Amino acid sequence: MQKQHYNELSRIFLRLSRFDHLNAIASWDMSTMMPANGSQARGEALAELSVLRHQILSDKKMARLIDAAAQENLDDVERANLEEINRQYQNAILLPDSLVEEQSLVGSRCEHGWRTQRPANDWQGFSTNLKEVVRVSREEAQFRSQAQGLSPYDALLDKYEPGITSNKLDGLFGSLRDWLPGLLQRVIDKQAAETVIIPEGPFATEKQRQLGLDVMGVLGFDFAGGRLDVSAHPFCGGVPEDVRITTRYNQDELFTALFGVIHETGHARYEQNLPRPWLGQPVALARSMAIHESQSLFFEMQLGRSAAFQQLLLPKIISHFGQQPAFELSNLVKLSQRVERGLIRVDADEISYPAHVVLRYEIERALISGDIDVDDIPALWDEKMQEWLGLSTAGDYRNGCMQDIHWTDGSFGYFPSYTLGAMYAAQLFAAARRALPELDTQIAEGDLEPLFTWLKQNIWQHGSRFSTSQLISNATGEDLNPLYFRKHLESRYL
Amino acid sequence: MQKQHYNELSRIFLRLSRFDHLNAIASWDMSTMMPANGSQARGEALAELSVLRHQILSDKKMARLIDAAAQENLDDVERANLEEINRQYQNAILLPDSLVEEQSLVGSRCEHGWRTQRPANDWQGFSTNLKEVVRVSREEAQFRSQAQGLSPYDALLDKYEPGITSNKLDGLFGSLRDWLPGLLQRVIDKQAAETVIIPEGPFATEKQRQLGLDVMGVLGFDFAGGRLDVSAHPFCGGVPEDVRITTRYNQDELFTALFGVIHETGHARYEQNLPRPWLGQPVALARSMAIHESQSLFFEMQLGRSAAFQQLLLPKIISHFGQQPAFELSNLVKLSQRVERGLIRVDADEISYPAHVVLRYEIERALISGDIDVDDIPALWDEKMQEWLGLSTAGDYRNGCMQDIHWTDGSFGYFPSYTLGAMYAAQLFAAARRALPELDTQIAEGDLEPLFTWLKQNIWQHGSRFSTSQLISNATGEDLNPLYFRKHLESRYL
Repeated sequence: MQKQHYNELSRIFLRLSRFDHLNAIASWDMSTMMPANGSQARGEALAELSVLRHQILSDKKMARLIDAAAQENLDDVERANLEEINRQYQNAILLPDSLVEEQSLVGSRCEHGWRTQRPANDWQGFSTNLKEVVRVSREEAQFRSQAQGLSPYDALLDKYEPGITSNKLDGLFGSLRDWLPGLLQRVIDKQAAETVIIPEGPFATEKQRQLGLDVMGVLGFDFAGGRLDVSAHPFCGGVPEDVRITTRYNQDELFTALFGVIHETGHARYEQNLPRPWLGQPVALARSMAIHESQSLFFEMQLGRSAAFQQLLLPKIISHFGQQPAFELSNLVKLSQRVERGLIRVDADEISYPAHVVLRYEIERALISGDIDVDDIPALWDEKMQEWLGLSTAGDYRNGCMQDIHWTDGSFGYFPSYTLGAMYAAQLFAAARRALPELDTQIAEGDLEPLFTWLKQNIWQHGSRFSTSQLISNATGEDLNPLYFRKHLESRYL
Repeated sequence: MQKQHYNELSRIFLRLSRFDHLNAIASWDMSTMMPANGSQARGEALAELSVLRHQILSDKKMARLIDAAAQENLDDVERANLEEINRQYQNAILLPDSLVEEQSLVGSRCEHGWRTQRPANDWQGFSTNLKEVVRVSREEAQFRSQAQGLSPYDALLDKYEPGITSNKLDGLFGSLRDWLPGLLQRVIDKQAAETVIIPEGPFATEKQRQLGLDVMGVLGFDFAGGRLDVSAHPFCGGVPEDVRITTRYNQDELFTALFGVIHETGHARYEQNLPRPWLGQPVALARSMAIHESQSLFFEMQLGRSAAFQQLLLPKIISHFGQQPAFELSNLVKLSQRVERGLIRVDADEISYPAHVVLRYEIERALISGDIDVDDIPALWDEKMQEWLGLSTAGDYRNGCMQDIHWTDGSFGYFPSYTLGAMYAAQLFAAARRALPELDTQIAEGDLEPLFTWLKQNIWQHGSRFSTSQLISNATGEDLNPLYFRKHLESRYL
């Protein structure tokens, strides 16, 4: 039986993936290489590309092709691909071209401004741009809401985590509110009685970079298909064939950049190991934002901050920075597992991290529903920081509501992925541990291949072939179960 | 009177310029940042973009729009823009989509291979790819030849230098053959009697980079709208709002990278000063390849290697590398004006440089016409190097016919621009000197603004508003006159 309609769709999406490649590289460049005055032209070029993408996806022949392809004799992978194709198509036709172009323009203006406004603590300047972003994001949410029969905010959530709703999140995050603040306090009290030696700097940027490259090598990063660079906000970008991760360095302190690199390497290995034969098709893409984050947190939190991994790390740190009293195994373990209430999400330990996420989730949900406006954000931020972590951000925008890049380009609905990812990561690591009884010994000895093979077989190689729920059930024997996350924290920190 | 057809064309070309922006950045990235295994996907993405560009340009409504716009009431700039629009359109419709895509694919494969094949002196591997490039370039030349009534090679020349033919080049280059080898010998004999102190290295890459940035600053490069990076083959890329120049460093030697940077800064300032109000339209583009090269050679040869400029350069070199006997004014002048027969075009002095160009011109012309094949290149190269410079490249492909990037992506017809550029540069500098009687003093004192203002007023700000011939006549009072180049060489070197 012929598959001509499916094949035509497949050619269209291959073409789109090539335009996405250019978008990925030009966006990476914008955050790592581009000089300040290149911003406007770059924003316009990316906006033009996003209009083109939208035009191709919303061509009127698409619906007919998708319907016809669904009648063809497709194998399992092709059928999963068709489902992803349909999801992209449905997402695209919801929005008029003019809105897509406007989103890209106001987003890149806001993001670019943020690069200088954040260090200047310039909330006034930033909020002017952010209001525009919120305005077009609300418009987007309205369009999606009407088409999908979801609330406006749930319709944005669905872009990043198909199947997740604020109802489900309230359940998952509500239970956090029950046990997490108490655990946090107990761990802080426990750690207050311990002695920790803080490493003495300065730690030269170039040496930190070399250490990062070294650890990326241990973690299996393929340097013939990727790079490490510097950006204001660390990210993993590029394309599966050429994955670009970034970090940022602080000469006074060693671990932020190091664990940042380990985190992004988790994202990178997922991308580098997506199913090669299907590359260019939607089914070859990473399953979802939360699954992506589960891989980075698997690397950073489950693996990277484990006591076993510190054994592997210690001689590398010494080889780059020389010996000093802080560089001793039990101290290194304490440093990697130090819990502290702080203002900055990306620097947060894994216990307080969910507090940062729930705060953002509640604010962005209210922002999109129209319950609050941009001008209300700083006061609400301060209030929720006090409530969860007992810290104030009054007047300190740069370390408060201006610290993240996400809202600048309108990625509302993304933040919950971080905590979903942490939950998936804990569940996956527990499953890997069951499958690999010698895991801790292997990690300490640097024999990481068995663990990476497990991830490759259970997560990476599947792309978007299965739904998130199927993928996790296949890998771990059950659907998302937040108990693993709680058990992980309690067993590591108590 | 309405200009609706012109305005519609103008919108189409603005859109194209945004795709060209992405092409420029992704191409820059490919030469400076991309890891080896990113090559195939990048090649495919760029090929897709070039097909898109070609499809937009060759849309069947274009001819009608251009005809209708020609009847509208356009001002001078709009009319010049329409002419450039028409030239791009005519160039585009000549070639079928499949050929455009094939060119991009075989070109990026050949260029990518060259990056490792050249250092490995692997002519066998390289020539396999080059044959494919020559095959599709001959096809292109055939299509152009039939449409334009030019010989196949002249039709390729016309892409880079509208109005130039091999007939005219034979005249210009033929006269070089009469006087240049004799001048070269006299200068070499004269310089043999002089004592020159060679600077003692090593010269650390990072210090060379800092010196380059320093000199770029003196030359007015706008760092808020551009960057300096490293690539195997130096070039000036990016877009007018974000100009990317590159160089390459050799720790044993200081001047190649330094004068390379000065050269590329000439290209860069032309780009950075193209007429802002017209950006996005073809009339805002640089006039031609030879005019572009005239700006880089104006910076490198006319200005950069002048005795006056060495006064400006000397303290900067000393501040980056410390004092040593070679760093003394008269010695620095000798070093900058040293003439030597050598194998490498980009390292050649300005007297022997045209020999490298004429050699390539004769070979590529024969290659396109079919008089010779790729396998004939090494022997011909060796023969002509012996004839012009008395040097052999037998077996030394990497320093012979594999030294340049140009042919790898099928840029046949480009090389003559270099020597045309040298001739334009000499003529322009002579005109600037007439307009600025204190020029040498100004240069020595670092007061370069008057010279740059002259260039801006006479060349940069005009984009493609005038034909090359008009532009040069307006700036210098006469059309291209190769006597200025000869006079320049004789007065500097004899």
